[in-house]
Amino acid sequence: MIDEHHIDALTKLLGDKGVVTRPEDMEAYGIGARYDRGRAAAVLRPATTAEVSAAVSYCVRNGIPLIPQSGNTGLVSGSTPDSSGDEVVLSLDRLTHQFALDLDNRSVRVDAGFRLSDLNRRLEEHDLFFPIDLGADPRIGGMVATNTGGSRFLKYGDVRRNTLGLKVVLADEAGTVLDLDSDLRKNNTGVDWKQIFIGTSGAFGIVTECVLNLERVPKQSATAFLVPASGAVLPLLKAMEERLGAYLSAFEGMSKNAVAAAFAHVPSLKNPFQGGNIPDYVILAEVSRTWDPREGEEPLDAVLENVLAEIWELEGAPLADALVGPPHEIWALRHALSEGVKRLGKLIAFDLSFRRGDIMPFCDHMKAEMPEKFPGVTVCDFGHIGDGGVHFNLVVAKDSPLLADPTFEQRLREWVFAVAVEQYHGSFSAEHAIGRRNQAYYDFYTPEKLKEMAAGLKMLTSPGKLGSVRFG
Amino acid sequence: MIDEHHIDALTKLLGDKGVVTRPEDMEAYGIGARYDRGRAAAVLRPATTAEVSAAVSYCVRNGIPLIPQSGNTGLVSGSTPDSSGDEVVLSLDRLTHQFALDLDNRSVRVDAGFRLSDLNRRLEEHDLFFPIDLGADPRIGGMVATNTGGSRFLKYGDVRRNTLGLKVVLADEAGTVLDLDSDLRKNNTGVDWKQIFIGTSGAFGIVTECVLNLERVPKQSATAFLVPASGAVLPLLKAMEERLGAYLSAFEGMSKNAVAAAFAHVPSLKNPFQGGNIPDYVILAEVSRTWDPREGEEPLDAVLENVLAEIWELEGAPLADALVGPPHEIWALRHALSEGVKRLGKLIAFDLSFRRGDIMPFCDHMKAEMPEKFPGVTVCDFGHIGDGGVHFNLVVAKDSPLLADPTFEQRLREWVFAVAVEQYHGSFSAEHAIGRRNQAYYDFYTPEKLKEMAAGLKMLTSPGKLGSVRFG
Repeated sequence: MIDEHHIDALTKLLGDKGVVTRPEDMEAYGIGARYDRGRAAAVLRPATTAEVSAAVSYCVRNGIPLIPQSGNTGLVSGSTPDSSGDEVVLSLDRLTHQFALDLDNRSVRVDAGFRLSDLNRRLEEHDLFFPIDLGADPRIGGMVATNTGGSRFLKYGDVRRNTLGLKVVLADEAGTVLDLDSDLRKNNTGVDWKQIFIGTSGAFGIVTECVLNLERVPKQSATAFLVPASGAVLPLLKAMEERLGAYLSAFEGMSKNAVAAAFAHVPSLKNPFQGGNIPDYVILAEVSRTWDPREGEEPLDAVLENVLAEIWELEGAPLADALVGPPHEIWALRHALSEGVKRLGKLIAFDLSFRRGDIMPFCDHMKAEMPEKFPGVTVCDFGHIGDGGVHFNLVVAKDSPLLADPTFEQRLREWVFAVAVEQYHGSFSAEHAIGRRNQAYYDFYTPEKLKEMAAGLKMLTSPGKLGSVRFG
Repeated sequence: MIDEHHIDALTKLLGDKGVVTRPEDMEAYGIGARYDRGRAAAVLRPATTAEVSAAVSYCVRNGIPLIPQSGNTGLVSGSTPDSSGDEVVLSLDRLTHQFALDLDNRSVRVDAGFRLSDLNRRLEEHDLFFPIDLGADPRIGGMVATNTGGSRFLKYGDVRRNTLGLKVVLADEAGTVLDLDSDLRKNNTGVDWKQIFIGTSGAFGIVTECVLNLERVPKQSATAFLVPASGAVLPLLKAMEERLGAYLSAFEGMSKNAVAAAFAHVPSLKNPFQGGNIPDYVILAEVSRTWDPREGEEPLDAVLENVLAEIWELEGAPLADALVGPPHEIWALRHALSEGVKRLGKLIAFDLSFRRGDIMPFCDHMKAEMPEKFPGVTVCDFGHIGDGGVHFNLVVAKDSPLLADPTFEQRLREWVFAVAVEQYHGSFSAEHAIGRRNQAYYDFYTPEKLKEMAAGLKMLTSPGKLGSVRFG
């Protein structure tokens, strides 16, 4: 437990700005983006890697449990303190000084406390961006700790693929700083240690600095809503990939229920479908390229239209309808899904992934069994078909008797995970990582040998009390 | 030491075909692609993961040292036995049964003994390939253990980026099989353990099965030799990236010395340069796309020509000359570099990498200092400018007095690595991994803490005697 003596010592290390103890100032650090509400014993706000190291060393030597917190926009209770009031938050929010752009290398070295939006704003004038496209606006350190994916994974990959180097502070007595901060794209000189800090919720160390790959901002993009023929989502994806290669930058699936919820939530959204009838399943397809149309070169929306016409004429065409429209209109619907679905009732959300060919069979399977297993639960799925991710959202009407049953949510979760993981060999966390919310499923689904290895790795790196996830 | 009793026991586990002990049959397993010549105590050739597990378990329990060997095409003495005659080779060459293609997922599950060429031949009819482009023809398991890159890294990345899952046998008493063999593109449910087996020369476990990402085979490609204006290699790369985005599939640099060596070695190669005068530095640029030209769409060589014309007209243009030519002719020169350079004399080769902007300054630095430091040594560098890799080849004339000095090669290596790693923050092994040849540099350049962590990881995974690299 932290006491005044500890606060004084930490204040000596971090300065007045570096230690927050007034309850009203700490409150925001205890509130997660969607679910959590906890209470911190104190909040530490180091401004440099050296300060992180000093603070961590002090806490480890004094048995003080630390929760690293970055943008705190995650959805798995990975970065908020629990309700005990014993945990100390180590926030990255003042770690925002270093910004070293290397245009030749197309990379940037930044402190881990940078917001994604701030980073991209500073890159704008160079026509560059960090190509992880998310609804939220996290800080970079937390993006590494969750290995976020997002809507353009299909083209650019996840944080792992775009991370060249990291600086990490370990929770050991010395607060060891690991310099894994190479700017190199190619380097095979031993274990690639940075990999173990990516997607592991900060349990093995605190990321304080990142070297990131950058991509050129697209100058042209074209978008369409596509209505796949019955059962033809994957054939449609393959037909698009074949004809568009690396032009294809998004291929997002949206169920009828999710689309309807978005229209209901944002009445200003245009309903572009014939007679206003929402199809069973809608694809948002985006193509993009990094240059302006050259003389003699078709603009990208014409390319997209030609390709769709070609697919339309295929024998057994996978396409039932297509509506090319301006990107901001097309994406507006996609961006309204999440909020729309939340308004329908109590949301029970799953962040699953599958082999690409298994997404639709899984969703169909669940929709067929739901009425009998959990009558009154509506499936409002949407997701990233191109990379196998699906936001499998279940909504329970607010007046449903199910909500009175204290075992309901647990039973529902266990059933969904059992079908997803055991029957379809899917993942119970595609892009949100573990956090407190998925701890029980990590414990249940991880083979004993891997759990032992993780416990060993924890001892090798950060034996101190660090993070929301128990790997040991 | 292995004795007849051990051979009998292993033969019971693996069958007659699975154990080789006749010296003439073992000889090939002792000869590396470029440097090595060792002697095996025996060669084990398991045909399934279960057999690998049984053999490894037996050897660990009996203290028999194992060297996993895949295609044995590596250049760092990673997969051949040493000269003691005590080491047992565990070859993957019979692990070639499983081949499960998932067209929806654009992935394949294969046994680790598949040759890259065999894999790609079987994928041909589906217009797919495993997009790691190498001069050699390794087996897949070894590609994972070296994390090979190659000439199209710029577009497709390395083995790490294209590996979805692995099955690994650990060198522990049980011969534990780790199922890290997911087909998922997105999965954040704990430590991504497969990462520690990629690029670590087989020291932590033997890869027996891989799930690989596949890409579509390009239907069109166009190539050119580019002569950059003085000091303008990187500006030229950036101008190309800006205008060609993901079309750009290779940007290879070739020094005048290397090109001259290729022409001398393969007289049938056309010399396309004005008056036959080889420029100081030549770029091979390739653009490619996965579809045939559509109506109204310019063919790709016209696109390339237009882009080059555009770059030509830029103020302070980074381009001094450009020769668009058919891909097989253009690549023929690139593919003749390695052999050509070898013919010039004694080759001392380095597989370095840098921030992209540091490649040319490093090479210039070395060329300036070489005559004084090591007179008579010629620099014949070529490399992958797009990803920072450089094959920094040094050639010593066969009659040079330097070769009589027993300390020469060691002094030369240490100097090159000191400048590359300490001054330019480069890597001493970009895409060949560690093996026996780089052990001393691993030991010298790796921080103590990371060495400790690697030793701990070795104990957690494969405490038995496995592989050519000592991580502990």
